[in-house]
Amino acid sequence: MFTTLAHVSIAVPDLDEAIAQLQQRYGLAAGPVQENVQQGVRMAYVELANARIELMSPTSASSPIARFLERNPRGGIHHLSLGTPEVVATADRLAADGAQVLGDPRTQRNVHGEPIAFLHPRDFLGALVEIEPDGRHD
Amino acid sequence: MFTTLAHVSIAVPDLDEAIAQLQQRYGLAAGPVQENVQQGVRMAYVELANARIELMSPTSASSPIARFLERNPRGGIHHLSLGTPEVVATADRLAADGAQVLGDPRTQRNVHGEPIAFLHPRDFLGALVEIEPDGRHD
Repeated sequence: MFTTLAHVSIAVPDLDEAIAQLQQRYGLAAGPVQENVQQGVRMAYVELANARIELMSPTSASSPIARFLERNPRGGIHHLSLGTPEVVATADRLAADGAQVLGDPRTQRNVHGEPIAFLHPRDFLGALVEIEPDGRHD
Repeated sequence: MFTTLAHVSIAVPDLDEAIAQLQQRYGLAAGPVQENVQQGVRMAYVELANARIELMSPTSASSPIARFLERNPRGGIHHLSLGTPEVVATADRLAADGAQVLGDPRTQRNVHGEPIAFLHPRDFLGALVEIEPDGRHD
């Protein structure tokens, strides 16, 4: 079902400032800033050898990320993302098993245009989990 | 400096129950339960193809993990861990640059006996970051 730890996502109040901090303090270079209009976030990725750190900031005060930042003003770890060979089938199976799947992967997309879904934290030990293609079965 | 996303760590109130849930719901198999006396936790790892999910529960009510669980009773993402070729040199350099390094990697050990340190969340976008050997430069 899940094959990889695809990324860890950190919500930040100021994306450009976060990118600058990671570069200056740790030499971690983020890729280009992109916007996911559907998810209401601006984002960038730091590519490590085996996985990515996602940085995101909200584009609207009503987004879930904005509400997370109200509780965590300086930012914090928002979710982890697990890779799977087949997002739609995995989400359907988990929903059929009684898990609360957030968003329909037939229409919900990441910034790369790939299908994604989320698992409610109550179904994964209190952790919000994104489900994305693992890129290993193209 | 940092080369890999080594693991994501989830603090849970009941380690055995957490292991059983991941196995039953997602087919994710955890390795053996181990105890890190120094860190005051029982823990187990789920090995994915590229990285690990760490599960941990406190062995004492005074541990930082116990305090995290008071704020997050059902559990939650506690930290991420970044791999580096040289933990001691990296921690020393970051401390010299003004970062708040938590614990001395000359004496602080993970359950594998490897040197580790932590970066205070204020130094990494609100995220608690463990620093561990990346295992790529033995």
